[in-house]
Amino acid sequence: MNRFGEELECLKLKLLEMSSLVEHAIQRSIDAVIKRDQIAAEEVLSAEARINAIELEIDALAIELLALHQPMAGNLRLIIAVLKINTELERMGDLSVAIAHSAKSLIDTPALEPIVDIPLIAGLVQSMVRKSLDAFVAADVDLALSVLTSDDTVDSLRTTFYHQLVSFMRKGPQNINPALNLLAITRTLERLADHSTNIAEDVFLFVKGVDVRHNLSQPMKN
Amino acid sequence: MNRFGEELECLKLKLLEMSSLVEHAIQRSIDAVIKRDQIAAEEVLSAEARINAIELEIDALAIELLALHQPMAGNLRLIIAVLKINTELERMGDLSVAIAHSAKSLIDTPALEPIVDIPLIAGLVQSMVRKSLDAFVAADVDLALSVLTSDDTVDSLRTTFYHQLVSFMRKGPQNINPALNLLAITRTLERLADHSTNIAEDVFLFVKGVDVRHNLSQPMKN
Repeated sequence: MNRFGEELECLKLKLLEMSSLVEHAIQRSIDAVIKRDQIAAEEVLSAEARINAIELEIDALAIELLALHQPMAGNLRLIIAVLKINTELERMGDLSVAIAHSAKSLIDTPALEPIVDIPLIAGLVQSMVRKSLDAFVAADVDLALSVLTSDDTVDSLRTTFYHQLVSFMRKGPQNINPALNLLAITRTLERLADHSTNIAEDVFLFVKGVDVRHNLSQPMKN
Repeated sequence: MNRFGEELECLKLKLLEMSSLVEHAIQRSIDAVIKRDQIAAEEVLSAEARINAIELEIDALAIELLALHQPMAGNLRLIIAVLKINTELERMGDLSVAIAHSAKSLIDTPALEPIVDIPLIAGLVQSMVRKSLDAFVAADVDLALSVLTSDDTVDSLRTTFYHQLVSFMRKGPQNINPALNLLAITRTLERLADHSTNIAEDVFLFVKGVDVRHNLSQPMKN
């Protein structure tokens, strides 16, 4: 493998490390919510610095590769995809921190009967995150496509939860704060799903050289 | 000017067109909220298609420039900055659509006494958006830096509004829906401010080749 090939491998490995840190942060932030696990929440907060640092390393390496080796076609698209996915992952790390903060607020309040099915939406979102990253690693456009369709399920679940939480709030002012926390958590989970969708779209662009953004109703035409 | 120079000019002009469309969409979405202006809300919804289309054009042109001309140093950083800012602008367009939808829900309900000072936070956010884009055009790192400091003001204003809206909700269940709408609007405005901050950080990377992300407390050291 030549020098460029080695550096490209290194870039991909760094992105995998980033993915794995962010997936773990998401998992632990969800544990913090569902299991009321204070330690999990603290873990997420302390993982943020490493995620931020590796984001900068990946961006710097990608730009260096572009500058020194002037890659063409497939490799150029790969590096652009890494830059885009890197940005998504860092934002996803920030969202896991937001979930950890909401979890900490909930841990401090008395336990509620489950108002909305957080484990259900969390499981769907984690599966989308995993599939979008697997799709990138395997350059698998069919898997990327499956992420795009799951996003609609998450959106409609979130709308259902919104109405359930509003009804719960209407029952008494003591319900307002916990409901707002749960609302924040489901909204943040939905944003994680949106970032997975963005990654899946980046996979299309990288693998097929085709931009499926804003044309999701007919993505297979190309 | 050579062929590359001409195409780079074209790329910058397209990004300016994108900026101007997104700034206008934000302005009209805020008009829809503050003036209860249904026509402004509809304008935002119908502007989305053009914003999405120009995002794809800019990405395609930037990747073509990288592939055909293998630019070095400053021009490479400029093209990477355009790619990053383009993504931010498209997301900001989506957020203006979200504000327009919230505005439409509010227009359908009886007018409220102003609970929170939406024009104040909206004005601050619009000023951040404008400054971040001006900083890019003028390659002005001081202006970019002023965006980074404004973000803290917006965050603290949003926290104040949050507490005001929760108190308002506690006064009676009839207040819950309008308060949730106003909460959604202030949160979306805060997200617009976050995107402006991202653009300001991209300006640093482009102008100075220095990454100030995650190191905002000491940005001038480099």
